[in-house]
Amino acid sequence: MNYVRNAWYVAAWAHECVSERPLGTRVLNEPIVIWRSANGGLAAFEDRCVHRLAPLSLGRCEGEKLRCGYHGWLYDQTGRVVEIPGQEKAPSGLGVRVSPIIERHGWVWIWRGEAALVDERWIPPVIGLDNANFVFRHGQLDYVAEARLISDNLLDLSHVSFVHTESFKMSEVWARERPRITEFDRCVRSERWVRSEGPMGGLDAANSVDTYFWCDCFVPGVLLMSGRYYPVGTADALTGNQPPDFNSMEDGFTTQAVTPLTETTARYFFMMGWRPSHESEASIEAIMATYAQGFAEDKTIIEAQQRSIDLTPDRRFTPSSSDRAVILFNRIIEKLARKDPTRRRESGQTADSASDMEESSRTI
Amino acid sequence: MNYVRNAWYVAAWAHECVSERPLGTRVLNEPIVIWRSANGGLAAFEDRCVHRLAPLSLGRCEGEKLRCGYHGWLYDQTGRVVEIPGQEKAPSGLGVRVSPIIERHGWVWIWRGEAALVDERWIPPVIGLDNANFVFRHGQLDYVAEARLISDNLLDLSHVSFVHTESFKMSEVWARERPRITEFDRCVRSERWVRSEGPMGGLDAANSVDTYFWCDCFVPGVLLMSGRYYPVGTADALTGNQPPDFNSMEDGFTTQAVTPLTETTARYFFMMGWRPSHESEASIEAIMATYAQGFAEDKTIIEAQQRSIDLTPDRRFTPSSSDRAVILFNRIIEKLARKDPTRRRESGQTADSASDMEESSRTI
Amino acid sequence: MNYVRNAWYVAAWAHECVSERPLGTRVLNEPIVIWRSANGGLAAFEDRCVHRLAPLSLGRCEGEKLRCGYHGWLYDQTGRVVEIPGQEKAPSGLGVRVSPIIERHGWVWIWRGEAALVDERWIPPVIGLDNANFVFRHGQLDYVAEARLISDNLLDLSHVSFVHTESFKMSEVWARERPRITEFDRCVRSERWVRSEGPMGGLDAANSVDTYFWCDCFVPGVLLMSGRYYPVGTADALTGNQPPDFNSMEDGFTTQAVTPLTETTARYFFMMGWRPSHESEASIEAIMATYAQGFAEDKTIIEAQQRSIDLTPDRRFTPSSSDRAVILFNRIIEKLARKDPTRRRESGQTADSASDMEESSRTI
Repeated sequence: MNYVRNAWYVAAWAHECVSERPLGTRVLNEPIVIWRSANGGLAAFEDRCVHRLAPLSLGRCEGEKLRCGYHGWLYDQTGRVVEIPGQEKAPSGLGVRVSPIIERHGWVWIWRGEAALVDERWIPPVIGLDNANFVFRHGQLDYVAEARLISDNLLDLSHVSFVHTESFKMSEVWARERPRITEFDRCVRSERWVRSEGPMGGLDAANSVDTYFWCDCFVPGVLLMSGRYYPVGTADALTGNQPPDFNSMEDGFTTQAVTPLTETTARYFFMMGWRPSHESEASIEAIMATYAQGFAEDKTIIEAQQRSIDLTPDRRFTPSSSDRAVILFNRIIEKLARKDPTRRRESGQTADSASDMEESSRTI
Repeated sequence: MNYVRNAWYVAAWAHECVSERPLGTRVLNEPIVIWRSANGGLAAFEDRCVHRLAPLSLGRCEGEKLRCGYHGWLYDQTGRVVEIPGQEKAPSGLGVRVSPIIERHGWVWIWRGEAALVDERWIPPVIGLDNANFVFRHGQLDYVAEARLISDNLLDLSHVSFVHTESFKMSEVWARERPRITEFDRCVRSERWVRSEGPMGGLDAANSVDTYFWCDCFVPGVLLMSGRYYPVGTADALTGNQPPDFNSMEDGFTTQAVTPLTETTARYFFMMGWRPSHESEASIEAIMATYAQGFAEDKTIIEAQQRSIDLTPDRRFTPSSSDRAVILFNRIIEKLARKDPTRRRESGQTADSASDMEESSRTI
Repeated sequence: MNYVRNAWYVAAWAHECVSERPLGTRVLNEPIVIWRSANGGLAAFEDRCVHRLAPLSLGRCEGEKLRCGYHGWLYDQTGRVVEIPGQEKAPSGLGVRVSPIIERHGWVWIWRGEAALVDERWIPPVIGLDNANFVFRHGQLDYVAEARLISDNLLDLSHVSFVHTESFKMSEVWARERPRITEFDRCVRSERWVRSEGPMGGLDAANSVDTYFWCDCFVPGVLLMSGRYYPVGTADALTGNQPPDFNSMEDGFTTQAVTPLTETTARYFFMMGWRPSHESEASIEAIMATYAQGFAEDKTIIEAQQRSIDLTPDRRFTPSSSDRAVILFNRIIEKLARKDPTRRRESGQTADSASDMEESSRTI
């Protein structure tokens, strides 16, 4: 898989990792068990016991240790085998691979790259379930499609005009208005103004507004999106720039993460947040119903796209001017994946200079 | 796939191709979208947008054009991209592959071979839903089996005595009576007399008849079958020849087409026709119930045969004398597939002489 | 598949092989039809007609013969084609491969190796449904897992303490107590004493007993297991040896067979027997409910283990001291598979000396 390994991937919701039940999942094609010990600490192991390869996610937590559910081999939090039932003592040096893991913004983030390069600053600055200033809705969807097709979809919102005619009901202005794209070291920002349309760029001309829409997409595939309505004329008055009061996110926002489970499947995590006073419960339910319909529309077209690609894997995409954010973001991914020391070793190349590594380590 | 490309394949029913809904299908392993424009014209494109390979069958018809449902690229009826939303103009030379298509006998026929060799005379002379002299029933079945196993089944009706004991209830006379086989350029004809049996070769001896049964199987896999009852003794009086009054098809007939979707799946289209005055509504319903049971019996044995073949792909069939029509028809198919200029190019051979092509172009 | 071919595999229950319905199954990856003629004789053919490879298991028995359900070719009990409908006579020498088969202990056993080496003495001395001295329950389960993972499970009962915490409710004493392992020519015996625990090694300390448990595992994967309770102190008094009165099997026993259907699927046949006077009907029902739960627990962990192995086929197991019976049994299997003349021929090796064959032919 041509993915960045030295990055934080969303592996699970923090609240679903409970000590009663180890959680089996996949990240970048590797089976992973995430488990929380009795004292609350999280660990992520490869999900196969060294004994006979049974998944450890079918085992159980015993205090600060994890026991395999087949023949009872016991692991400590560093992944070391500390007990083999029926044997006087376990041989030293037996253990499973452990991945760095961290709990933040309501998500559990996992690092599948070099331990020496772990850096918490690379966790994207998203707003998540642990932020008490907002009310949230959240959910997830599993795709039978490569993760990159999903982030491509999110990075080229011109699709909104054609895919979401039934849900978000936006006019073709979304496809015609070109966003302003800004590239950062591990992020691509898209901003766009939709001038003098109904809310969300829809057709309610009687209540026309100017909508400012903003989206940051972070490596490896984490998005923070928001937007806000302004009186008609604001966009022109600001000559298309970001409104000075925008950072308040008063009109709600959404945080989304796309994680490759395997080469052909992905998990799509999403959270929507609002100021408690800003939206009524009924309004939030209506918005979420629209999102559910919109996400189903995306899933239909993206999984169909994947099946089409699978039939003719040699066919290339034909880029258009609306793909600019897609191309820039994938270029960042390709560059970081190329620099990945794990990947270099696998392909037998020699390591680049240390300065190369430093360059890729700069935070945005 | 070792199939003839320069031939007309049944791709769909004419009446299911409506301008409101582009129809996605497969023919010879290629995803195809068939769409009808507002003025009624039909076109068949490869079913993937050049932009990001999403299926065009998830798009929509706009007048005389087809718009992709992902980012809105617009195609005219020749397959050319004429609009890219958000771009001033589409680059020239962008487009999808288009296949010749024709609407006839209630079916949509597609040509997956050389455009220069397209010849409407090669559409088999079947009788179909557009013929007002008959009342029809029709349907289709999808097989998880190679198309050729289905046409083999139809070409060797000795199976009727063993597969259809519960439905058509024919005696073993069907397996014992050898048909008369005649080979044409792109067709194999089978004729047989079943002497002095109940109708359909069944066991109702009190009402014995001589049954004349006739079947033409055309390249690439299209069948026209009919039969008629005569007083006992007619077969011998005619010394086994076709009755002079047979072409009237007074006793009903069936038209069937087998189209390879992929190398391992096929679609089986069927129509049954009767003179309006000849059969009552109740009688037709009873006949169709028998057909439904018989088709299910065929599907069971043929799909099981396919699974058996898949387990041991190196095993050969052992031919018997009842396979003669099967062998002759498959020999025609092999010969035409060998002559196929598309196939020659793919395998790096040089084209045969023009006279060879003419030979294979003769209509029957 | 690295399995012994010169061995008897359980293919079916004797009572499910009735002359009305040929039975299609698989053994060692080969499709097999088992059919019983009108006079009661059993035969096992490869399950594909030589004509067009349709499965013969869709055919029908006609007296002492089997007729294919597609075009009616007729086979005698030796697998020879004796009739082709519509042909004057069938060519001599046409036929299907036949496997030696025998009905014993309520099971149908099939021999997939050399006909010259067939030896009924190699049918394991199990006790089965045809033994009128016992009442039985029986059943079967299909696994999506290699057969060997199932026999491995049965050979290392230390898993009972961890897999069956909800069903058999045994304490960890099962994992701590090392069994005594004895190797025979085609069998591995495990014996163990569980001292001073509740029945079945459970936690009912008020009714503590010493339990003697005994299990013979025969090539290719057939188990006979039994156990009996004794007063606390018996194990020490016998210094861990088998009790002299044990062979009576008064406390019930179970007979189980694991048959590879394909390389990745297996069928697990099981029978439980009791002296008619020993257990009440209600008690038997309660025991069987516990078994059903326990078998489901095994299936869950073993199929998960198989999926884990499939993800990383290069990973090795790490043996522990509780795997001794597993290792010894698989060593016997490997040795017999290596000696297999069929296998030697396939790999192009020359046959070993006759004395080698004799060695592997010794019964236990």
